[in-house]
Amino acid sequence: MKKYTIGALLFSMMFAGVSAQSLKSPDGKFEMNFQLKQGVPYYNLKYNGDIVVEDSKLGLRLFKDTSIKFASEIAKPEDVKFDLNNGFTKTEEKRDSKNETWQPVLGEKKNYINNYNELAVTLHQDTTDRNIIVKFRLFNDGLGFRYEFPQQKNLNYFVIREEDSEIDFPTDMKAWWIVADYDSQEYQPQTTKISEIPGRWDQAFDKHSSQTLIKNAVQTPLMLKKEGKNPLYVNVGEAAVLDYSASHLEVDAVNFKFKTHLTPDKQGAKGYIQTSTVSPWRTIIVSPKAEEILDSKMMFNLNEPTKYTDTSYIHPTKYMGVWWEMIIGKSQWAYSTADNVHIGVTDFSKLTPNGKHGANNTKVKEYIDFAAENGFQGLLIEGWNIGWEDWIGHNKEFVFDFITPYPDFDIKMLNEYAHSKGIKLIMHHETSASATNYERWADKAFQLMNQYGYDAVKTGYVGDMIPRGEHHYSQWTINHYYRIAEKANEYKIMVNSHESVRPGGESRTYPNWISAEAARGTEHEAFQGNNPDHQTILPFTRWIGGSMDYTPGIFQTKLDYYFPGDKRFVKTTLAKQLALYVVMYMPLQMAADLPENYKRHMDAFQFIKDVAADWDDTKILSAEPGDYIITARKAKGTENWFVGGITDEDKRDYSVDFSFLDKGKKYEATIYEDGKDADYIDNPQSYHIYKKQITSKSKINFKMARSGGFAITIKPIVK
Amino acid sequence: MKKYTIGALLFSMMFAGVSAQSLKSPDGKFEMNFQLKQGVPYYNLKYNGDIVVEDSKLGLRLFKDTSIKFASEIAKPEDVKFDLNNGFTKTEEKRDSKNETWQPVLGEKKNYINNYNELAVTLHQDTTDRNIIVKFRLFNDGLGFRYEFPQQKNLNYFVIREEDSEIDFPTDMKAWWIVADYDSQEYQPQTTKISEIPGRWDQAFDKHSSQTLIKNAVQTPLMLKKEGKNPLYVNVGEAAVLDYSASHLEVDAVNFKFKTHLTPDKQGAKGYIQTSTVSPWRTIIVSPKAEEILDSKMMFNLNEPTKYTDTSYIHPTKYMGVWWEMIIGKSQWAYSTADNVHIGVTDFSKLTPNGKHGANNTKVKEYIDFAAENGFQGLLIEGWNIGWEDWIGHNKEFVFDFITPYPDFDIKMLNEYAHSKGIKLIMHHETSASATNYERWADKAFQLMNQYGYDAVKTGYVGDMIPRGEHHYSQWTINHYYRIAEKANEYKIMVNSHESVRPGGESRTYPNWISAEAARGTEHEAFQGNNPDHQTILPFTRWIGGSMDYTPGIFQTKLDYYFPGDKRFVKTTLAKQLALYVVMYMPLQMAADLPENYKRHMDAFQFIKDVAADWDDTKILSAEPGDYIITARKAKGTENWFVGGITDEDKRDYSVDFSFLDKGKKYEATIYEDGKDADYIDNPQSYHIYKKQITSKSKINFKMARSGGFAITIKPIVK
Repeated sequence: MKKYTIGALLFSMMFAGVSAQSLKSPDGKFEMNFQLKQGVPYYNLKYNGDIVVEDSKLGLRLFKDTSIKFASEIAKPEDVKFDLNNGFTKTEEKRDSKNETWQPVLGEKKNYINNYNELAVTLHQDTTDRNIIVKFRLFNDGLGFRYEFPQQKNLNYFVIREEDSEIDFPTDMKAWWIVADYDSQEYQPQTTKISEIPGRWDQAFDKHSSQTLIKNAVQTPLMLKKEGKNPLYVNVGEAAVLDYSASHLEVDAVNFKFKTHLTPDKQGAKGYIQTSTVSPWRTIIVSPKAEEILDSKMMFNLNEPTKYTDTSYIHPTKYMGVWWEMIIGKSQWAYSTADNVHIGVTDFSKLTPNGKHGANNTKVKEYIDFAAENGFQGLLIEGWNIGWEDWIGHNKEFVFDFITPYPDFDIKMLNEYAHSKGIKLIMHHETSASATNYERWADKAFQLMNQYGYDAVKTGYVGDMIPRGEHHYSQWTINHYYRIAEKANEYKIMVNSHESVRPGGESRTYPNWISAEAARGTEHEAFQGNNPDHQTILPFTRWIGGSMDYTPGIFQTKLDYYFPGDKRFVKTTLAKQLALYVVMYMPLQMAADLPENYKRHMDAFQFIKDVAADWDDTKILSAEPGDYIITARKAKGTENWFVGGITDEDKRDYSVDFSFLDKGKKYEATIYEDGKDADYIDNPQSYHIYKKQITSKSKINFKMARSGGFAITIKPIVK
Repeated sequence: MKKYTIGALLFSMMFAGVSAQSLKSPDGKFEMNFQLKQGVPYYNLKYNGDIVVEDSKLGLRLFKDTSIKFASEIAKPEDVKFDLNNGFTKTEEKRDSKNETWQPVLGEKKNYINNYNELAVTLHQDTTDRNIIVKFRLFNDGLGFRYEFPQQKNLNYFVIREEDSEIDFPTDMKAWWIVADYDSQEYQPQTTKISEIPGRWDQAFDKHSSQTLIKNAVQTPLMLKKEGKNPLYVNVGEAAVLDYSASHLEVDAVNFKFKTHLTPDKQGAKGYIQTSTVSPWRTIIVSPKAEEILDSKMMFNLNEPTKYTDTSYIHPTKYMGVWWEMIIGKSQWAYSTADNVHIGVTDFSKLTPNGKHGANNTKVKEYIDFAAENGFQGLLIEGWNIGWEDWIGHNKEFVFDFITPYPDFDIKMLNEYAHSKGIKLIMHHETSASATNYERWADKAFQLMNQYGYDAVKTGYVGDMIPRGEHHYSQWTINHYYRIAEKANEYKIMVNSHESVRPGGESRTYPNWISAEAARGTEHEAFQGNNPDHQTILPFTRWIGGSMDYTPGIFQTKLDYYFPGDKRFVKTTLAKQLALYVVMYMPLQMAADLPENYKRHMDAFQFIKDVAADWDDTKILSAEPGDYIITARKAKGTENWFVGGITDEDKRDYSVDFSFLDKGKKYEATIYEDGKDADYIDNPQSYHIYKKQITSKSKINFKMARSGGFAITIKPIVK
C-alpha cells in the first residue's frame, strides 16, 4: 500500500509540472528537494541517492483571532483562509553556506564544526498577501529546517492552531520511543517498529506527578533505524525551541509518517506569535553508523552563539548530594510532622520535627567532610527550605519562598564550613511547578545565593504547572525557563533544571543552563524502575540536544540493604555505574549514592574521583541503541583519557581498540570491570580492578555482565 | 405562586421539628434565623418583623480533586459526597458582639461605627468528618455572612466548583443592575423588575475590549427596591474578597431569588482553597431610606483593620491629566506610526513620530503650569512609556517595561519641573492585562517612581488577562491586585487601578489602594455613551464598596468642538459635573477636561479648585437610585461644607435645607447652578453662580435642568 502511494505521488508530480529547489550537503551525500504542489510546500531528503524522507508537507494552521478565549475560539471550526499551509507561490530563493569551528563553554569536544549549505525559499500567499520563509540547512549529518515569519503589513500577530510539519518515511523502521506528554518526559523507552507503536502505546506509561498524555504520539528526539543489509540510523528532533512550544510527533503507523504536534496552552492555543520571529528547527540526523548519531552536534549548531558577555563563572562540577536518601525513603525533605503549612505565617520552629529531616546541620557537615576529602567541588542539599510539608499534589501557588531555611539548617554556618574545605554548596529551588511564584522570588533567591557563595542551583518543576492549566512544555513555560536562565546569568549562577523541557542545543546560547533532567533519571530506579537498556537509549534520544543530570553512581543497588524485604533495586552492576560517567556526557556530574556506601568500595569509588567532567575530545567507539555504547573521552586540558562501556540486559563481550591514543606514547590504564560472577540481579557489586600499561596498539577484551559495563582511566606515563 | 411556596415552607418547618438559631441586630430591628433542614443550612432575614429574605440555602460544591486539569475534571459529573452543602449537624454555636468606632485613613467621615451582633454556627458533616463554620454579623444596616474553613484532618485543600449562597426575596422588586461578566464591569446600568431581568439581559451590553458575559446573571453590588407604601431598599454585595474569586448573582426571575456565581479560572475552577481560611462576606444592606444605603459602611466594617505600619504617605489628591485628549482622539498614547514593536529590541528613537503623541515635554509642561497655578497636587500622564504602538488586542505578554520613556518624554526634567512648582507627576502603568509581565517589572517600576518622586500610580488592565485564559475577577487575578497593592505599600506608593475588580471595602485593610475604576467611567461618554441617570445609580452600586475614579469635570461636553460634525457628547450640564465632586466620594479626584476648556470657564472651575477630597462628615440629604442624589460633606479639619445635587434625564426641583450647619453660625455660600435655559442636550454650558449668606435655618431652592445639578461651597464667615 505504501509503495502504491509513492507511485501515485510521483505520477502527480510529473503532470503538475512542478519545479523543485534542490540543496546538497557540503559532502554531497545528502540532497534535499523542495517544491510546491498546488501551492502546498513539500520537501524530501535523500542520502546517497536513496530516499530517506519522502515528499512531506509543511505548513501551519492558525486561529482566526490573535486573542483566544477559553473554550470559545478553540471549539470553532477551522477556517482555512487563515492558515499558512496552502495557496503559496515561490517569490524568492536565497542560498548560503557556512563552515565554521566554534568552542562550546562546556562540551564533549574542544571544537564543534558547523558546516552546512542553506536554502531559504520565500513563499507568498496571494489570497492574504503574506510571506513566510522556509529555511533549510543541510549538514553532513542531516537536515534542519524551520519557518521564518518576517514582520510585514499582513503578518504581525497570529496564534498557532498547529504546526503540521511532516516527516514521511518510505518504510517501516525500528523505533526507540517514549509516549508523548505535555507534562512529563520520564517514561520508559519502548522499542518497536513504527507500525507497532499504536499497539504498544497503551502499555507504555506509568503514573507521574503531572501528566497529560497525547494518545498515539511519541516524543522527540525520536531514534529510528532502517534495518537490513544497509542500515540507516535516523534521529528526529527539534532545536532552538525558544518562545515556542515543544513539539511531539503524531504517528501514522500505516504510512510510517510523523507529524508535528505542539504543546498547547490552557486555552488550546499552541503559540502566540509576533513577527519577526522564527520557529524552532525541525531536525533529521541521518547516518549509516549509530556512532555518528551520538557524535552529531547539529542541534547545537542550529542554535545562536551566546550573547552572554561573561561565561567565566561556568565550570564543570562534580558533586554529591543530600538527595538519594530522600529518594529511597531513608530520610525526608520535610522537617516537621505538619501536613498543611502557610509560608510567611507558619512558625516552623514551633512545629514538631519528624525526626527524619535530611538537610540538618549534622548530616550536611558529614556530607561536606566526605565530599571534600574526595575532591568534589559541590554538595547539593535538598529540603533545606521551609514548605516541604505540603509541597506536592495541592496545586499550591505560594508553596516556597526559596529564602527561609528550616530551623535545623544553619545556612551561614554550613556555607562557611563548606567553603573552609573547598566545597561549594549547591542551591535547590524546587518550585512545585509554581512558576509564577518562582518568578516572584527569583531575585531574592539569587541574591541569597550570592550572599552565601552558592554558584549553582538545581531547579525543579514537580507537579501541575502554575499558571494553572499551563503545561511544562508550552510556550509560556518554556519562556519561563529561559527567563530564569537569563536571570541566573545576571547573578552568575549555573542552572540544572529538573522536570523542565528537554533541550534542543540551546546551551550554546544559554551556556549557564549547564544541565537538565527532562527524562527518566536514576531516581526512577527507586520508584517504578528503569530497564537495563535505558542507559543505552538515552544518549540517542534525550542527550542529542544537551546534557542530562542522570545522577549515576549508585553502588548500593539493592534497597533491602536499608529496608529488609524491600524488592526495589537499581538494575545495574556497580561497574556499569562507573561507565555511565563516560558514556553519559555530564559537565554537572553527581556521585549520587550515600557516603557510607562509597566508603565500603573506595577502590571503585576512585574512578568517580578521577573521571573528568569536561572534554577536549570524544570518540564513540561502538554503539547500538538499546544494546550497548562504548565511549572514549579525553579530559579537558590534559592527556588523560577515560573509557566507558555499558550493555543492556544481555551479557556482551567487547574489545577496546586503543588506536585513538597518541602513537608511540605509553599510558597506564586502570581498569574497572564486572567481576566474573557479576550480574545486575544476582551479584551487582562484583567488580574487578587492575592496572595495565597500554599504547595505541593495545586491545583489551571485556566481558560485560548482564546490565554490566566497564570503565578505564588512562594516564600517560611520564618518563 | 410565590406566596404558595412560602406557605409550603412554613408548613414543612413545623413538622420537621427543626430548631433555629436566632440573631438580632443591636437596635433590635433586624432578625436573622439560621436552621438546618434535612442537614442543609438555611438562613432568613426579617426587618421590623417583615420577611426581607426568605429561607435561603447556603453551601458550596467542590471538585473531587485538589488538582484540576484543563477540560478533564471540569467535564466530570459532580460528586455530591465532596460538597459542603448537605449532611450537616450543628455542633457548636458561638455568639459575639462589637461596638467600635474606627478612623479610616481617607474617608467620608472622620469616624466609622462598627456595631454588630455575631453568630457563628459550626456545622459537622458526618459522612466526611469535616467542620465548616457559617458566621453571621447583623448590623443596624443589615446582614453579612461568610463561610469559615478551619484547618482540620479532613479539610486542608479543596477546589471550589461553585458557591451556592442564595438570597431568596419574597416579592418582585425594582432592580438597578448591570450584566455579569468575568472580565468587564463597564456596562450601562439597567432598571427593571427582577422578573424582567432575563427579558432585558440580551440588550444590556455593548462590546468591550475583554468580556466574558454570564448569561442572565447580574453583577454585585446589586441595588433593589421593594416599592409601594412601605418601600424598602436592599443592596446585595460582597466584602473582603481576598484570595477568592469575585461573585456574580444568578437570577431566578420567577422566584425572585439570587444565587452566587463565582468567577472561574481558565480551568473552570472557582477557588483553590487551603485551610484555615474564610470566604468573602455576602452582604445584604437594608433600609426603608435610600439615603441610609449610601450611608452604610458595612462593607468596610467587614474588612480587617490595616496591618500597614505607616499610612502617613497616603493622602487625598486632586489631579489633572494628559488623558481626556487621548480618550476623545485628539492626541495619542503611542509615539510613532509603527504597529508592531518589540520591547528591548525596537529602537524607538528611530521610529517615525506620529505627530500626535500626547505625553511630550512641551504639552506636559503646559499641563504642569496650569495644574500648579490652580492648586492641584498631581498630574497624570498616560502614554509616557514605550510600547503603546501595539499594546491592545494582541494578547502580548511583554507589552511594556514600565521604565523606559518615549524619546520625547524627559522623565527627569519633567519631574524636576513639576516639583519646582509643587506638583507631583502621577505614574501610569497600563499593563494591557499582562499581569505576569507587570509582576516581573513591578520592583523596577516602583524603584523608578521612588527615584523621581512619584507617589501615586494609576494601573490599568485593558484586554484579555495574561496568564492567558485567566479572568479579571478570578482568584489568581484578585491575588495579583493585592500583591501589587502590598508591593506599592513597600515603596510608599498609592494605587488607583482601572479595569480591576470592584472593591468590597478592602481599602480598610489596603488603604494605599485609594481608588479604582471598576465600573463605567466618564471615558465611556466618548465611546458608546453613558445615560443621564448613570451617576445617580453608581453611588448605590459600585461605590458601596469603595471609591471610584470616575474622572468628572468635563466642561466641553460636545465633541464637535474638536471635530466638526462629531455627534458624541457627555450627557450632562456643566453644573452637574461640578456636583459630581461632592456626590461621588473620591479621595483621588480628577479634573479631567483640558486646561483650554477650564480657561474659558474659570468662574465655574473655581468650585473644582475649592472642593475638598477628604471629609470629616457626610450627610446624604436626599436620594433615589436612578433619579437624584443630594449630598453634603464637611471638609477634613475645617468648618467648610460642600453640597452637590444631581438629577437624571428629568428636570427636578430641590430645596436644600441647611440644618446640618452649626446653629448660630453664619456662612458664605457660593452657589453654582444650572442656568435657566440649561439642558444637557441643548445648552449644557449654561450656568449661574452667585454668593449668599446662610445659616442652619436657611433653605435654597434649586431647579435642576435635565441631567443637571448644582454645587455649593460653604465657608464660615469669620467675624
